[in-house]
Amino acid sequence: MNVDIGNALAAVASPGISREALDRLDEQVAIAHDRIETGRANAEHGYEALNLPAQVDTDEIRSAVEPVADAKALLTVGIGGSSLGAATIVDALESDTETVFLDNVDPEWIVAHLDRLPLENTAINVVSRSGKTAETLANFLVVRETFEDAGVDWTERTIVTTGAAGPLSELADRHDLPSLNVPDGVPGRFSALSPVGLVAAAVCGHDIDALIEGAAAEAETLSDSLYDCPAYAYGATMYALDARGASMNAMFPYTEALETYSEWFAQLWAESLGKDDLGQTPLRALGATDQHSQLQLYRAGPRDKVVTFVTPQERSDRSIPETDVEDMAYLGDATLGELLDAEFEATEASLAAAGRPSVRVEIDRVDEHELGGLLYGMEAACILAGELYGINTFEQPAVEWGKKAARGLLGGGDFEEAAAVADKTELRIDR
Amino acid sequence: MNVDIGNALAAVASPGISREALDRLDEQVAIAHDRIETGRANAEHGYEALNLPAQVDTDEIRSAVEPVADAKALLTVGIGGSSLGAATIVDALESDTETVFLDNVDPEWIVAHLDRLPLENTAINVVSRSGKTAETLANFLVVRETFEDAGVDWTERTIVTTGAAGPLSELADRHDLPSLNVPDGVPGRFSALSPVGLVAAAVCGHDIDALIEGAAAEAETLSDSLYDCPAYAYGATMYALDARGASMNAMFPYTEALETYSEWFAQLWAESLGKDDLGQTPLRALGATDQHSQLQLYRAGPRDKVVTFVTPQERSDRSIPETDVEDMAYLGDATLGELLDAEFEATEASLAAAGRPSVRVEIDRVDEHELGGLLYGMEAACILAGELYGINTFEQPAVEWGKKAARGLLGGGDFEEAAAVADKTELRIDR
Repeated sequence: MNVDIGNALAAVASPGISREALDRLDEQVAIAHDRIETGRANAEHGYEALNLPAQVDTDEIRSAVEPVADAKALLTVGIGGSSLGAATIVDALESDTETVFLDNVDPEWIVAHLDRLPLENTAINVVSRSGKTAETLANFLVVRETFEDAGVDWTERTIVTTGAAGPLSELADRHDLPSLNVPDGVPGRFSALSPVGLVAAAVCGHDIDALIEGAAAEAETLSDSLYDCPAYAYGATMYALDARGASMNAMFPYTEALETYSEWFAQLWAESLGKDDLGQTPLRALGATDQHSQLQLYRAGPRDKVVTFVTPQERSDRSIPETDVEDMAYLGDATLGELLDAEFEATEASLAAAGRPSVRVEIDRVDEHELGGLLYGMEAACILAGELYGINTFEQPAVEWGKKAARGLLGGGDFEEAAAVADKTELRIDR
Repeated sequence: MNVDIGNALAAVASPGISREALDRLDEQVAIAHDRIETGRANAEHGYEALNLPAQVDTDEIRSAVEPVADAKALLTVGIGGSSLGAATIVDALESDTETVFLDNVDPEWIVAHLDRLPLENTAINVVSRSGKTAETLANFLVVRETFEDAGVDWTERTIVTTGAAGPLSELADRHDLPSLNVPDGVPGRFSALSPVGLVAAAVCGHDIDALIEGAAAEAETLSDSLYDCPAYAYGATMYALDARGASMNAMFPYTEALETYSEWFAQLWAESLGKDDLGQTPLRALGATDQHSQLQLYRAGPRDKVVTFVTPQERSDRSIPETDVEDMAYLGDATLGELLDAEFEATEASLAAAGRPSVRVEIDRVDEHELGGLLYGMEAACILAGELYGINTFEQPAVEWGKKAARGLLGGGDFEEAAAVADKTELRIDR
């Protein structure tokens, strides 16, 4: 990816960062880069994510999915980091394989999906790092039963991706299912470029080697100065703007293909940086659609946001037919792609004209290579930002309390958190 | 809807509002209610939205959609307020009619949709208040041509919803298309309960009278005290919490059916309140999925958020099959709905345990009546909040600059905004 931070400079926007402050920040970037390289060299937890391109075995993934290579549909059972990386990749790229992600436990929604899918032509991709995630296990039990009730052998079409131990691993052994490993040092939200994201991509026929090559090329750009590294330029700028008041970062791609990518980014940013009362909040927007929804707030609301545009430099296009209707005629000289690009440039300029900061991230086009680079680049940006904040980027302790409470409420053990649920303070206004 | 603001009280959370401050705020609510009632009585711009349940002619809508009543698919061409209300309704309710919303001008995405749809069984629903929206007109020109190229008469299956004048109205006259009116005093984001939202609902076979009845029942609750009116309790609490530091409001429904509703709410809240450097920023989350993505930030990040849960009290359910795998067995005593409800209660309690504010909005179930009440209630809440902020809730001036710039860039006239686009400040970090 290429990055342009011109519209985040203090000369353009408020909040913004001055050139002098950027130079000072670059000294911290050098120190952070050093820490990151040490973490990578010592295979420390989390930092390992940046080593994935050199380590992932794409042949192993291809051979695991071989038995379901002709599936017409792919049902992925996973949630959070076990779902969003795979969803980002398959939603960005065209494929004839239909994909469904069971990333929630809403009963009506799950039953509707399972009723609709051609089960005899559906592959199942179960993903849970711990192998204990309640939502994923519950859904997998329902999926198994649904296949059995339909007389379809689920053991012939299921691939499991999980850690070395746990109930899911036990289950894979018991039924002799193809099983891939979630790399030990890689938290879920950093695992898109491991089997967690690549199994789904491979089943859908995407070039997983090109994904890894794109990531590897991005890895080559990591260096001790933000001026030489697009990923660090992005991470450092976001950190600096948050410190100056931009407590929100609106991810605003100008292509439908990257709508799910914004969800993936939102988890990456929120769960990695949101701790110790710190962390910039990710917002999700989509160009041009959300110009008609969010732009009023971004341009004229509080000065607490920075916008991140992501734009492909090439795309297939479609001309707009000519018309003699007045006030519509000018459209007939353009294509839809030109209209979309004009909307992007206009929106970027309209924020700058109002003194609101934005950053532009460019990729050549939406394909495997560029997507691999974008995911890797944003992971590196996030890890750099974590170093600058001085937090532990790779843990998510605040999620545990609720997990225990939910398990306790369901009778899965004795947890004091479950008792606290009953103490709710009420002030009801009923109709 | 019913509202419980107990977890937003200062006794529970920070930021939070004390009972005393709530009583003082209630005096402002009374004054704001008076202003709103005057606006409704005088049919003032915007306030008119709250009169829709008494004014909308559902018979007229049903007869307009009569010619396409047997359509297998519905293609809606519209963007922002001309799309999100309809999308919210049809995405929430079950129907055999497939729905596609062309709410963007991404060429690859549009071509893929049009290639896939059964055109001879597809109805077209074109919506633009001004009749001039570039994205909608461009898409409609492409849709028309696609139907013509396929030998399908688009004039026999197109319904237009637009204002009294403009190119779209001219086009409807020229081809003698059924045409419905966007009520004059109702901004797009407040128009879900007008033909803008109801045409799509009617084509999909939903009970549009029940939608209106639900809204009318909610309208009956509007009164001069937040303690007597769920909508005002919600709007006043959000205003008070924003003033106390909760600059973000995370809409967090615990049902897949309301995922699009959160997008609708985000436009309502952002475009109505985001002006004069004021306005609370809407976030979109979905339970239980985003517990594994956003919850870490909401619970342990900066104290700048309030979470709004929306929960249906009833839903169809699905039991979780039993298993003898250790660590999974407890799930077999539950249903997916019980798991989802336990996740909700646990998440709500986990925020309260960390002193983070939340509000609970309850609806009986996801059906037409309850949805009508929810949409109306949130519109009333937003209008009340606008009064408390002292801003003009019903305009969106910050969007105009970009529209002019885009039109200028496409050669649709001479606009100084287009020239400003070329002046961009660059600081590029390329790979």
